[in-house]
Amino acid sequence: MEYFTDTDMGLDMGLVNRAVESAFADHGRGQIQMPPKVYVTLPEGDFRTMPAYLPSLGIAGVKIVNVHPANPARGLPTVMALTVILDVGTGQPVAVINATRLTDMRTGAAGAVACKYLAPKKEIVLGVIGTGRQAEVQVMAISQECRIRQIKIWSRDPSHVRKFADRFMAFPCVAAPVEKACDCDVLVTTTPSRVPIIRDDWIHEGTHINAIGADAPGKEELDPAILQRAQVFVDDPAQAVHSGEINVPISKGLYRESDIEGTLGEVVIGKKKRRDAEAITVFDSTGLAIQDLAIAKIAMQHGRKIELPFP
Amino acid sequence: MEYFTDTDMGLDMGLVNRAVESAFADHGRGQIQMPPKVYVTLPEGDFRTMPAYLPSLGIAGVKIVNVHPANPARGLPTVMALTVILDVGTGQPVAVINATRLTDMRTGAAGAVACKYLAPKKEIVLGVIGTGRQAEVQVMAISQECRIRQIKIWSRDPSHVRKFADRFMAFPCVAAPVEKACDCDVLVTTTPSRVPIIRDDWIHEGTHINAIGADAPGKEELDPAILQRAQVFVDDPAQAVHSGEINVPISKGLYRESDIEGTLGEVVIGKKKRRDAEAITVFDSTGLAIQDLAIAKIAMQHGRKIELPFP
Repeated sequence: MEYFTDTDMGLDMGLVNRAVESAFADHGRGQIQMPPKVYVTLPEGDFRTMPAYLPSLGIAGVKIVNVHPANPARGLPTVMALTVILDVGTGQPVAVINATRLTDMRTGAAGAVACKYLAPKKEIVLGVIGTGRQAEVQVMAISQECRIRQIKIWSRDPSHVRKFADRFMAFPCVAAPVEKACDCDVLVTTTPSRVPIIRDDWIHEGTHINAIGADAPGKEELDPAILQRAQVFVDDPAQAVHSGEINVPISKGLYRESDIEGTLGEVVIGKKKRRDAEAITVFDSTGLAIQDLAIAKIAMQHGRKIELPFP
Repeated sequence: MEYFTDTDMGLDMGLVNRAVESAFADHGRGQIQMPPKVYVTLPEGDFRTMPAYLPSLGIAGVKIVNVHPANPARGLPTVMALTVILDVGTGQPVAVINATRLTDMRTGAAGAVACKYLAPKKEIVLGVIGTGRQAEVQVMAISQECRIRQIKIWSRDPSHVRKFADRFMAFPCVAAPVEKACDCDVLVTTTPSRVPIIRDDWIHEGTHINAIGADAPGKEELDPAILQRAQVFVDDPAQAVHSGEINVPISKGLYRESDIEGTLGEVVIGKKKRRDAEAITVFDSTGLAIQDLAIAKIAMQHGRKIELPFP
């Protein structure tokens, strides 16, 4: 058994995008095993257990990930993750992977796959709402799939915009008021908001939106009116209804599960698609265990390994 | 984060029994979190993901355990397990534990706790059906709770009986035909049988039975008539109905879930008990995640530790 640390170092984001795309294709074809995430509540947060088996990549395992909002005050990340990989033939644990940064990156890769299939064009103006780690990996991953002409960045704190732009010197970056950042081809929302911060009248026809921030009941970033006039694609319907961008509108009766256009997996295999150039498309991302396995497959070729005795 | 290996070495089985007893008490009081085991099927076996949080011991985590019947032919155990422990305050992974042998031992401890509360007397003749690893840990653990006057051992293969007896020289051991082994105070059944091997007329009044072998749909060791005249206590009703000793009789309409007398947790907290000296009592063990956490708590004070960088 091996312990993999620093597995994000030197990871080829293009390869990660392809592995995650292949995982979504298998999801679209129903060729995976992925029971629902299991939640356990701790005094100041929770942890989620995410088992899966991805036959096409020959990988099986479990990601364990916590969410503890008070951690940063203690000098720890809010979210930390560990993935255990089992040998598909014998069930033996063969790897334990530090998956904290991989969790961000596989979310970036899902956004990039959504962009590849749903963006209105290949050369895009990218609007970015929020400037945290999720925003960063979205730009990294999307830049592998689309040519980015410009990045319009909005953050509550202008100093964050400057720091963010410094990380992406390869692209023309501009600070923008939130409504101007929405005037783009692809919009990425990455905030932990619990009230809609993107208004319906700011979104023009033909826009694709990656709705990344909402990942728990009660969170939402988009005016529900946007969802009502958009084609909404989810990673997994059950998870999206429970904790994705659509969770609050559904609980308020402003959106129905039957309004969902399809899954990203169905888009990847060509079963569902953007209606036309005028359609607004939304990818509602909650994060799937198969994404974690797909990135684990690549990450195990990277980073420092420590040999551990087992059994 | 630390990796713990060889954690079974030097483990005080009495301490393990107490920790597992305390976990069952919390289970009886409803003071735990333990979502149902999640199964994922692999080509030649399966793996189970078992998350839990045990507030009284201040421990949370996930056991991941496979079952691959063809493994011994490859020189690997059928069952291998890894437990990941998270810090209850921050959710940070703090330990990864080689839990293969701990899994056997915590099952032994559950059997010992059942004996402590349900055996008809403190000085017992112990009948043991099967001579594998599960039989061994049952004897080890039970010997901490009851004085064993004699062990009557039955195995399909007589040479296994000799080897088994050699491991327990401290007790008078005799090889016995299966029906004679049943003439005892406490009977432990540990075979992977899929047809009843213990007949109803072999079991006299006042016997306590630890039914350990049946841990998957289709497995059973006891004539259902034994269950019908016994007080049956389970570790967890949902798991027992799905995969415990009662699973086949229930599926055949020979036993009902409502016939279950109670849980071992309820017995430990005094809510349920052996009716009288003449009652036959059965403990139907399927294995709970809280047992894995209880033994992990003790095991982390033992064995070799390897320091791992995280996050």
